[in-house]
Amino acid sequence: MGAAAILSGLLTEILIPAAAVVGIAFALVQWLLVSKVKLSPEDSASSKDGVSDYLIEEEEGLNDHNVVVKCAEIQSAISEGATSFLFTEYKYVGIFMVAFAVLIFLFLGSVEGFSTKAQPCTYSKDKYCKPALANAGFSTISFLLGATTSLVSGFLGMKIATYANARTTLEARKGVGKAFITAFRSGAVMGFLLAANGLLVLYIAINLFKLYYGDDWEGLFESITGYGLGGSSMALFGRVGGGIYTKAADVGADLVGKVERNIPEDDPRNPAVIADNVGDNVGDIAGMGSDLFGSYAESSCAALVVASISSFGVNHDFTAMCYPLLISSMGIILDSSPVDFYNFQFRCPEAEMDRELFFCVATGLWAGLVIGFVTEYYTSNAYSPVQDVADSCRTGAATNVIFGLALGYKSVIIPIFAIAISIFVSFSLAAMYGIAVAALGMLSTIATGLAIDAYGPISDNAGGIAEMAGMSHRIRERTDALDAAGNTTAAIGKGFAIGSAALVSLALFGAFVSRAAISTVDVLTPKVFIGLIVGAMLPYWFSAMTMKSVGSAALKMVEEVRRQFNTMPGLMDGSTRPDYATCVKISTDASIKEMIPPGALVMLTPLIVGTFFGVETLSGVLAGSLVSGVQIAISASNTGGAWDNAKKYIEAGASDHARSLGPKGSDPHKAAVTGDTIGDPLKDTSGPSLNILIKLMAVESLVFAPFFATHGGLLFKIF
Amino acid sequence: MGAAAILSGLLTEILIPAAAVVGIAFALVQWLLVSKVKLSPEDSASSKDGVSDYLIEEEEGLNDHNVVVKCAEIQSAISEGATSFLFTEYKYVGIFMVAFAVLIFLFLGSVEGFSTKAQPCTYSKDKYCKPALANAGFSTISFLLGATTSLVSGFLGMKIATYANARTTLEARKGVGKAFITAFRSGAVMGFLLAANGLLVLYIAINLFKLYYGDDWEGLFESITGYGLGGSSMALFGRVGGGIYTKAADVGADLVGKVERNIPEDDPRNPAVIADNVGDNVGDIAGMGSDLFGSYAESSCAALVVASISSFGVNHDFTAMCYPLLISSMGIILDSSPVDFYNFQFRCPEAEMDRELFFCVATGLWAGLVIGFVTEYYTSNAYSPVQDVADSCRTGAATNVIFGLALGYKSVIIPIFAIAISIFVSFSLAAMYGIAVAALGMLSTIATGLAIDAYGPISDNAGGIAEMAGMSHRIRERTDALDAAGNTTAAIGKGFAIGSAALVSLALFGAFVSRAAISTVDVLTPKVFIGLIVGAMLPYWFSAMTMKSVGSAALKMVEEVRRQFNTMPGLMDGSTRPDYATCVKISTDASIKEMIPPGALVMLTPLIVGTFFGVETLSGVLAGSLVSGVQIAISASNTGGAWDNAKKYIEAGASDHARSLGPKGSDPHKAAVTGDTIGDPLKDTSGPSLNILIKLMAVESLVFAPFFATHGGLLFKIF
Repeated sequence: MGAAAILSGLLTEILIPAAAVVGIAFALVQWLLVSKVKLSPEDSASSKDGVSDYLIEEEEGLNDHNVVVKCAEIQSAISEGATSFLFTEYKYVGIFMVAFAVLIFLFLGSVEGFSTKAQPCTYSKDKYCKPALANAGFSTISFLLGATTSLVSGFLGMKIATYANARTTLEARKGVGKAFITAFRSGAVMGFLLAANGLLVLYIAINLFKLYYGDDWEGLFESITGYGLGGSSMALFGRVGGGIYTKAADVGADLVGKVERNIPEDDPRNPAVIADNVGDNVGDIAGMGSDLFGSYAESSCAALVVASISSFGVNHDFTAMCYPLLISSMGIILDSSPVDFYNFQFRCPEAEMDRELFFCVATGLWAGLVIGFVTEYYTSNAYSPVQDVADSCRTGAATNVIFGLALGYKSVIIPIFAIAISIFVSFSLAAMYGIAVAALGMLSTIATGLAIDAYGPISDNAGGIAEMAGMSHRIRERTDALDAAGNTTAAIGKGFAIGSAALVSLALFGAFVSRAAISTVDVLTPKVFIGLIVGAMLPYWFSAMTMKSVGSAALKMVEEVRRQFNTMPGLMDGSTRPDYATCVKISTDASIKEMIPPGALVMLTPLIVGTFFGVETLSGVLAGSLVSGVQIAISASNTGGAWDNAKKYIEAGASDHARSLGPKGSDPHKAAVTGDTIGDPLKDTSGPSLNILIKLMAVESLVFAPFFATHGGLLFKIF
Repeated sequence: MGAAAILSGLLTEILIPAAAVVGIAFALVQWLLVSKVKLSPEDSASSKDGVSDYLIEEEEGLNDHNVVVKCAEIQSAISEGATSFLFTEYKYVGIFMVAFAVLIFLFLGSVEGFSTKAQPCTYSKDKYCKPALANAGFSTISFLLGATTSLVSGFLGMKIATYANARTTLEARKGVGKAFITAFRSGAVMGFLLAANGLLVLYIAINLFKLYYGDDWEGLFESITGYGLGGSSMALFGRVGGGIYTKAADVGADLVGKVERNIPEDDPRNPAVIADNVGDNVGDIAGMGSDLFGSYAESSCAALVVASISSFGVNHDFTAMCYPLLISSMGIILDSSPVDFYNFQFRCPEAEMDRELFFCVATGLWAGLVIGFVTEYYTSNAYSPVQDVADSCRTGAATNVIFGLALGYKSVIIPIFAIAISIFVSFSLAAMYGIAVAALGMLSTIATGLAIDAYGPISDNAGGIAEMAGMSHRIRERTDALDAAGNTTAAIGKGFAIGSAALVSLALFGAFVSRAAISTVDVLTPKVFIGLIVGAMLPYWFSAMTMKSVGSAALKMVEEVRRQFNTMPGLMDGSTRPDYATCVKISTDASIKEMIPPGALVMLTPLIVGTFFGVETLSGVLAGSLVSGVQIAISASNTGGAWDNAKKYIEAGASDHARSLGPKGSDPHKAAVTGDTIGDPLKDTSGPSLNILIKLMAVESLVFAPFFATHGGLLFKIF
């Protein structure tokens, strides 16, 4: 090892934790800035002394004091509801996680019959590696570590979002720009905390595990893969549970409130309104936080595992192997610096990086941006696709749905080509490692991605609070403008998540095939082909479950809301306060109950297929679910995003065309509301959960690969 | 060759044409029976002398004479519209077919540089086979033959259907049973004519080609594959063009008539009503006829090609190779015999058939039946899934759509397992040949399948004629009952079509891989994987095109219908006759124009991918589109069928539950109508076209395989 290598090693050791610290510090600064917006009326009154702050209330003669108090009240109600739901959810998921951790230990421990003796390495049979039992133990630990980090990430995100929503409302009194800054900063707190935390925990875990494993890279990174599995498992339940919660409340509130009773969205008379706002925080914020953390953890693990079995591992080049973590570090630093992101120069002298790997990162980033732009084109109401969908509302909800579905299907084309090109290029450059690195390249923008993703629901909540606090309609218009942009940014964020999920899954799949010692995955063998076709079916099965769950939970919500409107006389005129708590409870119960079957489907499929049908069929299942799931995920999020924005386009009435379709309450607008409601479970429940499905099955297969390779395929062994 | 073999050969030579003749004779007998229902009032009056014929008109005092005349008039208007559309369609498609035939000749001829010398065979290099130029010529001939047979099949089907629809209406006066018999018999005419024609033309072509090829089986069956390609190409345009036609008219008529003007379906005041009825015949009848003929031709060709390169071909066992045709022959004979189909004993002594092949046929049949039963469960309003969808209409169109989509996704699960099991079993028994034979087993019921499939649209038309002729509502109720059953049978027919398409495509894919001399199709090579993911995207692209086409054409139709209602004063009170012809023209123009892009997508993809990216990527595309397309096709048809029947369930009001949702015009019923309208393009345009997409790309790849193997992969050769 030359002096340059030692120097570079040292730099790596310093750069990664330093980047994590920078990320956390940056998050704290943003949080400090958000906290400057005061939620108590005294301070708000004192801020009136300032010159620049011209508030809408003064103009319209509203009582500023009361408004601020009301906002604070509503915020704390939302925060309480969200906290209580997440605790309930985590209780159930916690039990599951412990049970699954035991399963991991038993399955992996059984590979060598719980022997404590060292055994020949998988890839170099002449050397000796740590016993399978140790791998079982460390995999279990890293699984729990990943799950916990994911849980904390989601929870922190929710806390920040509920801290920021009323503040965004109050800032909206000063202008749309101020509100945007507050919402976006809060998103950034979450984004940077998550990315930095994920990096830090992973880095510490690797270094601690290394104390035991020494230079047994195979064993080290095989165990570390548990971190990705833990992160993703938690993300699955977060996304599905949170997704059902938020959409049951949203659909239920809209169906009775907007459609039947003709009261505005987020009207405080609607009993489901608090549940709806809680839902935004537990589904779109906490769920998404866990999801992107899972993506990040998995792609890092995929890259590390692939690196460990590549020439880097053989050459014991720890620095080169930490290259994946370096990419993430650079991502955090670049995201937090005020450099124009799209034009940054990627320089990383200490990594001695090949031009090949640089191109892999660049390809991933490029594909991510293409997906982002295409998503924007198809879901923003500034472009013709959404306007066409809005126009089709003239002839009713049916044509709106037909056009929306067609739009979603069409929006798949270019992203798939972009993914295909980036796979081809990065594989040609550095095989499976190239693909893992490309995924990391796409995710290097995770912090910004999360920030733009989180800002949408925060704005949505801010609008809700404005409505509930009885604030001026001009404030609602401002938050609505933010929210419309938020739908697009959310769709872009989902685009990144799906694109990176495709690359990550492929890299994990590649690692699984190496680990399971399969030489080829030949589609024309029946074992693989039946896996392929069944795998391609799984996203449908999963979507059927989640959509039906949302539908059933929404029906229950509708019944409750109708019951309250019918049996509580003063509800419509505002003299009686609705029973918000029952609606919160319905959403909570439904989502906890309904998240189990889809969760079980995803978690158990690799175990059952691997154990009974063996690694070839499991390979087919992974490939099938990957190529089929990506399409449904992209089309579902874009269809939903387009419907939502087509509705907003009509409501905003910003052009002659839009005004000809409106105003609110017109027949085309009603048709648009129907489309929006249908899109809710597509874009916020089933669609985004699908990228977890494909990643999770891949990472789970990789973790259990040693077991499947030894004991799998029982059914074919018997017959 | 022993005496037994000669005897069995003779029997084969006799049995196949005999079966075709039996099929044609059976069809003619059915036609004779249908023609006994007279459409002229004199005869109808004379039939009154009979004892058994008790007509509703007599009871209700309607003028029998006028009704019959009116029915005959409407029938001829529908028939004229359908004939004129089909002629226009065939003109455009004819030009395309000739151009494509030239392409086939040039591409395949260029394989050996248009040399007329014999060359080494592909599979046994020590022998000499006919020149590539001869294969090019014969492939072109069989392509044109397939296209023509498909065209004739569709046209005959349409003619029979338009001959039968008014007769079914008139029979409905005597009872639902009589109407059923008439509609079903007409379906049977079509089913048996098609199956027998397809078999006969194929048999004659093989025997004629054999005069030139002698015992060069490879060349013979390679050329015969063009028959499958021709049949399927025609089917593609028939399905897409017809599908757009029928649904543009249907959606357009419903949106203005039922939703805006509150007039019943098929009301003669609706200007789009004739176009709607014409659409049933050109889309659901002619399109479906071409489609199932294509399936049949392709599966026969797949089985023949695979057989020719298996041990049968090597041993020159012509009888064994004709086994695929024997299966079809037995299918026709068994279908036409009055034996209970589900319990028949499959005995075929002269084929010396192996137990293995018998099990392959049985597996295919079994899988087909499973798919059929599952389809019935998910689309018939006698079971809970459709009733749940109907129930979700209580809360509006949005929940109806969510539940309907979830139902479609869920309905995919069991059929995919059935297909996977049948693939595994039949492949284990007889490799790719087993899969081709299983597909034939599934299609051995093609004649009955077509009959039950065709009877739905005939009943639908009959109901339309009753409405337009101003007949009693009790007649409409009877035809509606038939039509509701027809939705289920149509969905079952589509299930068979899709299941067999999956098996056929896989067999063709296997043959393609052999012919293109690829040893394995390894998913983990980037060339294959990018093919796989892009292939899985194609069904979405295709669906986006066809759904958008239906949507746009329907919007044009809506505008025209609205224009007529607004500018023609006497239209609503029935004093002015609407301008039916303009609506027919709108549907015709739109469907001719809109069928070109999706058609080009399917026809050009294999050519472009094979020529520029080579056979590995093309293999990936075929596998990807197969595993992804099957899912969308099944879910689209079942979702559409379920919505249609949920609406019918509410309209019929046959149970307390159904009555609580009705009556017609109630809010839940309106929501159900919206769902039905959305389902129209899903179940009748994009869904059923997808099985053509997957089969057609596979058969086209097979036909062009010699070219791709020689000159393909230009892009990778350059770089």
